[in-house]
This record gives sequence, structure tokens and C-alpha cells, in this order.
Amino acid sequence: MATKSTAVMVVMDGAGDRPVPELGGLTPFQAAKTPNFDRLASQGQSGLMHVISPGVTPGSDTAHLALFGYDPVTTYPGRGPLEALGAGLQSKPGDVAFRANFATMNPDFTVTDRRAGREFTGEEGLALQKALDGLDIDGVRVHFVHTVEHRGALVLEGKGLSEKITDVDPHEDGKKVLQATPLVPEAKRTADVVNKLIRLSFERLRGLDVNKARQMRGIASANVLLLRGPGQHREVSTLKERFGIRSAVIAGGALYIGTAKYVGMEHIKVQGQTGTIDTNFDGIADKAAECVESDYDYVFVHIKATDNASHDHNAKQKVLAIERTDRMVGRVLDRVGKKIVIVVTADHTTPVTVGEHTCDPVPIVIWSSFIRPDSVKRLTEIDAPHGALHTIRGIDVLPMLLGYSGKTEKFGS
Amino acid sequence: MATKSTAVMVVMDGAGDRPVPELGGLTPFQAAKTPNFDRLASQGQSGLMHVISPGVTPGSDTAHLALFGYDPVTTYPGRGPLEALGAGLQSKPGDVAFRANFATMNPDFTVTDRRAGREFTGEEGLALQKALDGLDIDGVRVHFVHTVEHRGALVLEGKGLSEKITDVDPHEDGKKVLQATPLVPEAKRTADVVNKLIRLSFERLRGLDVNKARQMRGIASANVLLLRGPGQHREVSTLKERFGIRSAVIAGGALYIGTAKYVGMEHIKVQGQTGTIDTNFDGIADKAAECVESDYDYVFVHIKATDNASHDHNAKQKVLAIERTDRMVGRVLDRVGKKIVIVVTADHTTPVTVGEHTCDPVPIVIWSSFIRPDSVKRLTEIDAPHGALHTIRGIDVLPMLLGYSGKTEKFGS
Repeated sequence: MATKSTAVMVVMDGAGDRPVPELGGLTPFQAAKTPNFDRLASQGQSGLMHVISPGVTPGSDTAHLALFGYDPVTTYPGRGPLEALGAGLQSKPGDVAFRANFATMNPDFTVTDRRAGREFTGEEGLALQKALDGLDIDGVRVHFVHTVEHRGALVLEGKGLSEKITDVDPHEDGKKVLQATPLVPEAKRTADVVNKLIRLSFERLRGLDVNKARQMRGIASANVLLLRGPGQHREVSTLKERFGIRSAVIAGGALYIGTAKYVGMEHIKVQGQTGTIDTNFDGIADKAAECVESDYDYVFVHIKATDNASHDHNAKQKVLAIERTDRMVGRVLDRVGKKIVIVVTADHTTPVTVGEHTCDPVPIVIWSSFIRPDSVKRLTEIDAPHGALHTIRGIDVLPMLLGYSGKTEKFGS
Repeated sequence: MATKSTAVMVVMDGAGDRPVPELGGLTPFQAAKTPNFDRLASQGQSGLMHVISPGVTPGSDTAHLALFGYDPVTTYPGRGPLEALGAGLQSKPGDVAFRANFATMNPDFTVTDRRAGREFTGEEGLALQKALDGLDIDGVRVHFVHTVEHRGALVLEGKGLSEKITDVDPHEDGKKVLQATPLVPEAKRTADVVNKLIRLSFERLRGLDVNKARQMRGIASANVLLLRGPGQHREVSTLKERFGIRSAVIAGGALYIGTAKYVGMEHIKVQGQTGTIDTNFDGIADKAAECVESDYDYVFVHIKATDNASHDHNAKQKVLAIERTDRMVGRVLDRVGKKIVIVVTADHTTPVTVGEHTCDPVPIVIWSSFIRPDSVKRLTEIDAPHGALHTIRGIDVLPMLLGYSGKTEKFGS
């Protein structure tokens, strides 16, 4: 293809919705003032997207795999490895990774606070991390990193590990820490290592100065590490290997960064990027434009604020999050509009009336200066079905974007 | 997912059509007065459905497998096992099942009436059934049941059976009964058993009192049993195993009941449910509503009258059948509309101008109180393509219906 552009994908988390009574029966997309999205819709092509397949309610992780062009049914490694990668740990095929959280427990293993008071300073996290990272349990190396609040990620590195074990987290205060048990015979060693690790974490954490100080301040002691969401990194070809492209992810949340790293994307940091409505939209736009101007072939931008508003049943804030993303996209278009093919969409529907992910397809628009227009004028759940994209699946979006960007080769001759 | 509803699917057999000159160029759906379907279309989402895939003319059995969420290419066992299940016989992996019909033949094996006069009382059927059911041929057990008219179903139970044999039914009067021949070497035993069974049926039936009485009344003697449509029950996961749901089928015809049982659905009987225009529409509606009010997750309702009218080239009766189904759906909506997600569609197109199944896609509508509306106002072949469902495949409908009903889990986290 003659025209070479950069492929840009902007995903508003959970932005798809249903008619909201509080908005007069409009969806947040319909209620929002979005001059830039309107321009993309008017000049581009719209449609509805089943992010995974019809009727399947996507998780955030599986949805992003699909949007990155991967079939989640064969490539999804579970949440653990994706969180671990996002938290800055290495994870490679053979390793088993977990989401981790500090908790407070009694010596009889009864959990009294699954979040150990929730408040942690960076210094506290670092001190606790030091006590666990690098441990060796029966030849298995423990890699641990603290992230935010009581949370962290943990990777077990060693031979003969399996993710097929049960959780140790009782998921409820007042209950005892569970024994990890193997779900298949080959997982016995991993379950043993995990059970030893939990005990060892209690021995090593309980007496730390940081916990004494916490107790003095009346905050729960972080005296045990709980693990959940075990998963094993799979052998996946990176985007570079599949398409020969250089890809960047601009996202705040560890899960999105981790999923992008899993497929070989580079994480580009933006000062002040958070999951909230007050994230640095201008900074994100400027960084995305910079990536376009340097030699990235594919730039992925994730905005979390829409999903947080949905989970909080906050329709007005969702409208605001959409409007701010619209301005952010306008800033990108102003600066590098002539050099890009852009997709704007959502990773799933989270109706504010429901507060959870649902299976409804999401609206999507694709635009570039050269693309054929259809008759749709706005990016909404109600307008998009009239567009030229009709219904597409998430896994087809990246190939389409790369095709229009001139980044993929002709098939055949 | 917060919203839990019951998934309801109403299928009008062969209801899809083409413009009919007798109806002024309208299709029967367009010509029918359907205030309830109109409401579903106006408030819900419409589209066209390729029940199997584009260009494939569905059989009634394969179409229903797809609508139940099964790929007919890998799960279709042939007609025999489905008819057998519908007729009340057991059929399990390893068995070979057939459609059966009583015929009249001369001792030289020339068939003089493939339907043996067609008229059978229940007593006659039972007497004939007794003479065949339970036979043992070389260690293979014969299970036979008479259903209606000259028809029945037969299951062979034993070791080393195969469905890969040719039919014995000559499908034409005046021709000799055919020898079953094996299509693969492993099927030799089954062919031998079938050939012995045909001979044995003649020996056991010809002298029965019931046949003497039929001859006295001038009706053809039912002196041989012909078999066709051999099939072997496959290992399929039930809907319960796949989705954890409890499913009910409300249908009159054995084939539909059998196909539903094949995937583990429970058959719910309705007094007066038949395949005709005079079926008990109110009773069907009330039973469907009862199923919604008890703890079924998925309720499937089959209406046959539309297909019969199509095969008879009777456009007016097809319009009437659609209108009566519309009223039936209205009755369900009045009673349990707030508790359901409902799909109304057809299993294939049978144009009244053709009188046989064709490959044309069928209109489909999905509705619930919370679903996003599109701009379509009527359920017709001509309006539906403008809807938000665009083109979907039969196999995707049940997952979508279960997804909206909150019966399936999020994939990933």
C-alpha cells in the first residue's frame, strides 16, 4: 500500500452503555458533547464491535488481548502474569505469576484484614518488598514487587511449575488462609512452594520495623502475603514478530500495561496518567503525538475514567470522561491527524445502570484522511450500527488498522 | 452480571419467505398484522440470520442444532437418533438409530405401498410395535416405537455398530426393498443385522391379526418395516454441562423434541400442541410463561404451522400462522415480559412460491426491557437488514441470548 501512516487506537474502558434514565434515555455517548468524535464519525466508518464474540462478556484482560489482535481463547494466560508484567516484573513461559496482597492475620492463620489497613507509603511497600523479593524456596526463585496500596505482584521462577492450583486467599475477613492444593498431579510442587511461601512471609514480615511502626500508628500490620489469580505465561509471538511493527502502549493501569507488554509492546510513561477523571489528558495526547512523530507503527492509548464512572453508577461523570477523551483526541488530530489512521472505541460495555461488564457490543469508528466515509455522524451505540463497518469482532480491528496504515503486506501476489 | 432474566426463543418453522405475488409482492411477515412483533422490533434489535452459514440451506434438524448453540458440522448425528429421541426411545453413543415406516410388500420384496395405507389406529401401531420391539439379532437389541400414521423410530443397541450403511427403503412404490450394504468395512455387521431385521419383520408382521383385520377393511397390510436415515448418537456436552443452565423445549414434532433432548433439554408437554394452524397457541404461551416463572434459564418454543403452510403453497394460511404466533408472543409478554430476554425468528426460509427449504437468511429480533433499541419497526425480511444485529449466524444466537440474560460468566477478569 502506498500510504504509510501510524496506527492509533484509543480505547475508553467500559465506555459502551445502555439508555440511562438519568440522561433522559440517552446513553452517555449520546449525551456527551463530542465534536472530535463527531468529525471522525462523519468522515470515517462506524460499526458495532463484539470485542470477543457475540454474547461473551469480556474481562478487561481478554478484551485487550483481542484488541491487540490475539485470540484470548488460546493466548490468555490468566490475570497473574499480566499484572506481574504491568508491575514491572519479568514473566516468561514456565514461570507462574500471581496477584498478591498484604493482609493481616493471627498466628492461627485467621485473616483479620485482607487489605492490612489498605494504606501504605512507598517506603513501607519497599521495606516489605525487600523481605520477600529474591527468596529461594526449594530451588524456586520468588520475585515480588509492591505496587499501590496493599497490592503487588509475584512471580515464581523455576522448573516444573504449574498454575493449576487453588487460591490461598480466603476472600473474606475472619476466615483462615487456605491451603493451596494441586488441581492436577503435576502442580503438587507449586502448591507446596506456595504454602511454604505464605508461612515464610508471616515469619519474615511480622517482626519488621515497618510493622511495629504501623501498629504504633494504629494501622493493621502487613504480616502475611496472600496470592490469587495464578497464571502461566504462554508462548506468544509478539506484534513485532507477527507484523514487524514497533508498538507503544500509553496506559495508567498495571493490567493494561502488562497485557500490552505480554504481546511485546513498549510502555510509554506519561506524567500524571491515572485511572481517574483527573488524569493528564493533554499529556497523554502530546505523548501519543510524539510517538506518531517518532518511529512507532502502532500507538495504543487507554483511558480508564469511563469505566470507573460506570462502576460507580455515575452517569454524569461518565459523560464528562467521554468529553475529556474527545478533547484529547482532538489534540492528537490537530497535531498529527494527517499522519495517522485512528480507531476510537471501548473494550466492553459497562452500563452505569448495571455497574458491571455486560455482553453488549460497543461502538467503534475508524478514520483517516483517505478512508471512505459512511453516513454516520456520531460515535454512539445507537448511530454506529448504521455505519459501513456493520458488526466486527475485536480480533479483526488491529489487522484492519494496520492494513489501512500500510503496515502489512499483500497476501498472495 | 446484575440483571438475571430467562432466555426465551420463539422459532416459527420455515417462516422466512420471498415476495409473494398473491400478497401483492409482500412477504407473509410483511402482510401479517403483528402488533407484538412490531413492538419487539421497535424497542429491540433486528437483523438477518444465516442459520448455518451463507448459502447453506438448513435442514430442520441441523437448523435447530445451530439455534441451540451447537455446530451442526461437528455435532449432527443424522436424522435417526433425533427422531428416536423425539419418539421417546433412548439413544446413546454407540447405538445406531433410524426413521422407520411400515410398508406393504409382496413376498418377492416388491414394495406395493411405502406407507401401508397411511392410516393407523393407536391399537394397530401398538400391536405392530410389540412384534418388533425387543428383538435380538446376533446380539444386537432392537428398540422400536410406533409414532403417528405409518411412522416410527428404531434404535439398534449393541457392540461394533456403524451408521455407514445404505438405505433399504426404495423410496418408490413398485420397486424392491434394497439390501443394506456397508459403506465402510466396519459397517458390515450393521448391514447384516438390518437385512436380517427387514426379513424378520416380514415374517413376524404378515400373519398378525391386525393385518388380517386391515385386509378385511380393504386397507393395505403393514407387513414390513423399512428403515432410513441411519445415524449414530455422538458424544455432545449438554447445555447444562456447557452453561450450567436448565432448558425447556415446548414443541409438537418429534424431530424438534428429539433435537432438544439430544442437547439435554427437557420436553414440556402442552395439551393440544400440534403442527397445524389449530395448535393450542394460548396453552403454549401459558406454559412458556410458567417455565419462566419456575426456574428454567432457557425456554425454547417451536411453532410448526408456518412451515406446513409454506409446503402447501398457502400464503394466506402462512400469514394467519404468523399472526397467531404474534398473539401468542403478546400473551407471553403480558405475563412475564419484565423477566425475559426474548428472540423471535425462524429456523429457515420456506418460500410459499417454492414449497421447500431455501438458503435465504431469516429475520430475527432480540428484545428485553433493557436492550438498546435500533431504528427497525417491524419483524420482516425487508426491515430486519436495517437493524443493529446486522447479519448473525444461528450458532451465535444462544450465547447472545444467555449473555444478555446474565446466565454466562465474564471471560477473563
